[in-house]
Amino acid sequence: MKSDIEISQAATLWPITKVAKEVGLTEGQIECYGHYKAKINDKAWENMPTKEGKLILVTATNPTPSGEGKSTVSIGLADALRLEGENATLALREPSLGPVMGIKGGATGGGYSQVVPMEDINLHFTGDIHAITTANNALAALIDNHIQQGNELGIDVRKILWKRCVDLNDRALRHVVVGLGGPMQGVPREDGFDITVASEIMAILCLATSLSDLKERLSNILIGYNYNNEPVYVRDLKVEGALTVLLKDAFQPNLVQTLAHTPTFIHGGPFANIAHGCNSIMATKAALRLGDYTVTEAGFGADLGGEKFLDIVSERLDHRPEAIVLVSTIRSLKYNGGVAKEDLTKENLEALEKGSANLAQHIQSLTRYQVPVVVALNRFVTDTEAEIAWVKDFCARLGVVAVDTEVWAKGGEGGRELAKAVIAACEEKHEFSPLYTEADSLEEKIRQIVIHTYGGKDFVLTTEAQKQLAEIKAHGWDHLPICMAKTQYSLSDQPEKLGAPKDFTITIRSFIPKLGAGFIVALTGTVLTMPGLPKKPAALNMDVDENGKIKGLF
Amino acid sequence: MKSDIEISQAATLWPITKVAKEVGLTEGQIECYGHYKAKINDKAWENMPTKEGKLILVTATNPTPSGEGKSTVSIGLADALRLEGENATLALREPSLGPVMGIKGGATGGGYSQVVPMEDINLHFTGDIHAITTANNALAALIDNHIQQGNELGIDVRKILWKRCVDLNDRALRHVVVGLGGPMQGVPREDGFDITVASEIMAILCLATSLSDLKERLSNILIGYNYNNEPVYVRDLKVEGALTVLLKDAFQPNLVQTLAHTPTFIHGGPFANIAHGCNSIMATKAALRLGDYTVTEAGFGADLGGEKFLDIVSERLDHRPEAIVLVSTIRSLKYNGGVAKEDLTKENLEALEKGSANLAQHIQSLTRYQVPVVVALNRFVTDTEAEIAWVKDFCARLGVVAVDTEVWAKGGEGGRELAKAVIAACEEKHEFSPLYTEADSLEEKIRQIVIHTYGGKDFVLTTEAQKQLAEIKAHGWDHLPICMAKTQYSLSDQPEKLGAPKDFTITIRSFIPKLGAGFIVALTGTVLTMPGLPKKPAALNMDVDENGKIKGLF
Repeated sequence: MKSDIEISQAATLWPITKVAKEVGLTEGQIECYGHYKAKINDKAWENMPTKEGKLILVTATNPTPSGEGKSTVSIGLADALRLEGENATLALREPSLGPVMGIKGGATGGGYSQVVPMEDINLHFTGDIHAITTANNALAALIDNHIQQGNELGIDVRKILWKRCVDLNDRALRHVVVGLGGPMQGVPREDGFDITVASEIMAILCLATSLSDLKERLSNILIGYNYNNEPVYVRDLKVEGALTVLLKDAFQPNLVQTLAHTPTFIHGGPFANIAHGCNSIMATKAALRLGDYTVTEAGFGADLGGEKFLDIVSERLDHRPEAIVLVSTIRSLKYNGGVAKEDLTKENLEALEKGSANLAQHIQSLTRYQVPVVVALNRFVTDTEAEIAWVKDFCARLGVVAVDTEVWAKGGEGGRELAKAVIAACEEKHEFSPLYTEADSLEEKIRQIVIHTYGGKDFVLTTEAQKQLAEIKAHGWDHLPICMAKTQYSLSDQPEKLGAPKDFTITIRSFIPKLGAGFIVALTGTVLTMPGLPKKPAALNMDVDENGKIKGLF
Repeated sequence: MKSDIEISQAATLWPITKVAKEVGLTEGQIECYGHYKAKINDKAWENMPTKEGKLILVTATNPTPSGEGKSTVSIGLADALRLEGENATLALREPSLGPVMGIKGGATGGGYSQVVPMEDINLHFTGDIHAITTANNALAALIDNHIQQGNELGIDVRKILWKRCVDLNDRALRHVVVGLGGPMQGVPREDGFDITVASEIMAILCLATSLSDLKERLSNILIGYNYNNEPVYVRDLKVEGALTVLLKDAFQPNLVQTLAHTPTFIHGGPFANIAHGCNSIMATKAALRLGDYTVTEAGFGADLGGEKFLDIVSERLDHRPEAIVLVSTIRSLKYNGGVAKEDLTKENLEALEKGSANLAQHIQSLTRYQVPVVVALNRFVTDTEAEIAWVKDFCARLGVVAVDTEVWAKGGEGGRELAKAVIAACEEKHEFSPLYTEADSLEEKIRQIVIHTYGGKDFVLTTEAQKQLAEIKAHGWDHLPICMAKTQYSLSDQPEKLGAPKDFTITIRSFIPKLGAGFIVALTGTVLTMPGLPKKPAALNMDVDENGKIKGLF
């Protein structure tokens, strides 16, 4: 069996100019980054059709720690739609180097459903995430310099919200003290680093709809409070122009291809457990205007990226999905039914039935939005026919079509039945029904998510969160949507509660106003904004041979 | 008078494929980054001529704080050589974002002697420096993770030499404590951040001669000591492969053009006051093989980048310069003669004479290498004919040709006389005479530099430096060359000692073994490896208009 990188390296790619031509973009409308990557440019936007294709949101049930192949299904589905004769495009997130060097190795699909060149996409790609890291840390340096140079704005060093970042898993940077060493080395204060994909600038880049909107959002970032406890914004420092300069190129979507040459826009990559978890609006917009069907993926389960796409992103995108694909696997359902990781390869209909409560909760939560849902069972070689049949029957009883796919092993050919089901779903009549409206209180917004999306009972606030909520209301920021930071392993805020827990209460330990992104983050459970590395990081397996060929990126 | 960015934005650039063709590179031998930037690839190296052109090293006298236009002269000289009918190429350093956002605004020449596209080169360019930052910080995260996960190598957290980095001026990160917050957040320890251009990985990238050499050098990085006080290297962590993966693309030289379309390799940018200060060997090698004359620049004065090029880089490049251009200005000589910054525009022959001692010391120091030296006077509009004539006469008395240039105002046309003088100098018979040999003791190497290059008397070591030197000798690392970290404003280690101070003693406060780069850094005076921002950073002037046009990069 070939590894993902072997399949990828053996593939014959089209020059990116040819991929661009497939969607009507000329050489003058793209900026090539090597022979197989490009960014679209202003000239592309000037001549872009205004009519938009149909949008298919791919999300998933709660995963096992190794993931369930949601990207693989998204890629395979887009390839399959093209085999069905449709002009399909893809919009996906950029991988973060943190997980690439840590656990996952790569995040560009798998088997014969991959986006390529996989090494480049998994490593520095076109530099977008580095530009975000730089802008984030330039702002931090400008804040500390302002304080050091007299602190005209009276920034309270105990109340700075803006953290530094690196796009790596580095737990030693979670809590730090900076500015040590005496009066020439800055003002000592507590600080911390987030992973770049949790930076508000990543969220802003993904939610902004134009370069002016990007600058406006950057200017609105709340960096902390002054000694009178009044908010201090980026615009008070007058550095939104410099930050926009740093992000100007990164703001344009990247174009690559799948192994089957499907045009793929990969752009922006906020984590779905600690941020909003969806690729940029600019990428989805380009994909929608250049294709008749656009497949996009929201990170982790339907309770995380899925909910955030539907409640935060789609309104700003001004396009609701015509259909939702809910990816699940026999493995993950058995895992949710209590089977240990090492036993997932054995048939176990009892555990499957038990774990399918997780699938049922997600189906119920998604159909609530009044958008057609198709369940995609991503097949593993160890799945048995009895298991597949059971899940299909289970979904049918819930009134939802379930299709098994073999896109990992067969590429687009393994997803043709799914593609047909999705095309049919897109034709169904539907009217999007939002989970909450702007006018709802923050508490009401959270309650709707906890009850309808998670299947829980209610939520509680820590003393700190209560105080923060009162401040948010006092400042008039409570009209904003909520961005829940929660474990991806459970519908609840406790990773060990698998399946479909009932009657649980979510504990919100902290609220963080992200006024540039335009949402309030609610941190639940023990979710971390900076991951750590495992005992044996993926980095240990990576190498380059004498001919420059990369090994060990899975 | 147009600003640099206005001149640059008004220019008509050649497609980079056309620039590549000028030096015989086909489209298949380059990887385009947009329409005007490229990296050369392995196929270019496979078919590269082995014959090398003539190498012209551009260095300078000690500068005023605003710099003396050394890059501008290098660019103008290369353009002028092409006007003289020669196949000239350029090899320059990549600007660091630290100074760009801090003081300088841009670092791509000026007036009509610029490299373009100046915005891209000054901002993220092709991502090389970001790749270095990432590799540097991945190593730091892997070290801290190793300690957290059981510390099998027994790394003494009090003796870790490897620091984190950002490519920004951020004084608050000079001294930090990381790993705070309890047992799940790592092991608390003192740490610090350098600016990326001071990272050993930057030095390695610039000194490596092949991808295998790069990996070998990375594996040799000394990261600290274990509890038995034995050295711990990157190879002990087994992560040199992963670091090479992260640096693979960054290792290839970048190709851009001057305003006059001269092919220019811009690659690597270590600071010259705290690192070795020269662009990569790969870039100079490519430029030498693809051109008949290659102009390269070493950072700051001849006492810093110049000395390091001649004593460290040129041996590894396996090519000594055929001629040296020593850039000076009437302004800087008067400044060295004690004139205040605000009075530099007035004629002052007395101060000029006094400050020319600085020029004399550099001429003496450079002719010591037995390489022909040409003095280039970079003209400012405020220079008077009497001042120019005086300096020319002064140089003639020292046996060196001095030529005034107007490359800022006139581009290559303003440097034709300099080009002619340089071509003539390259024809002179000469045999390179090194300042020291590998066999000399470290003390002897330093003494040679202090006496011959700086014109000083001797050096002293702090107690800490004495202890470190003893350790370096005990480990057998004293055969390595020395890389002096010293202020750029004085030949001594005290920035206020202008002109040509005599009888001074250099104080070395610390030695840092950079075993991957292959040299020992000697920190003198108060030189910092992480700069700070000024009260009004250049970032405050930067902006992007609605059409995406960047303003405020000078």
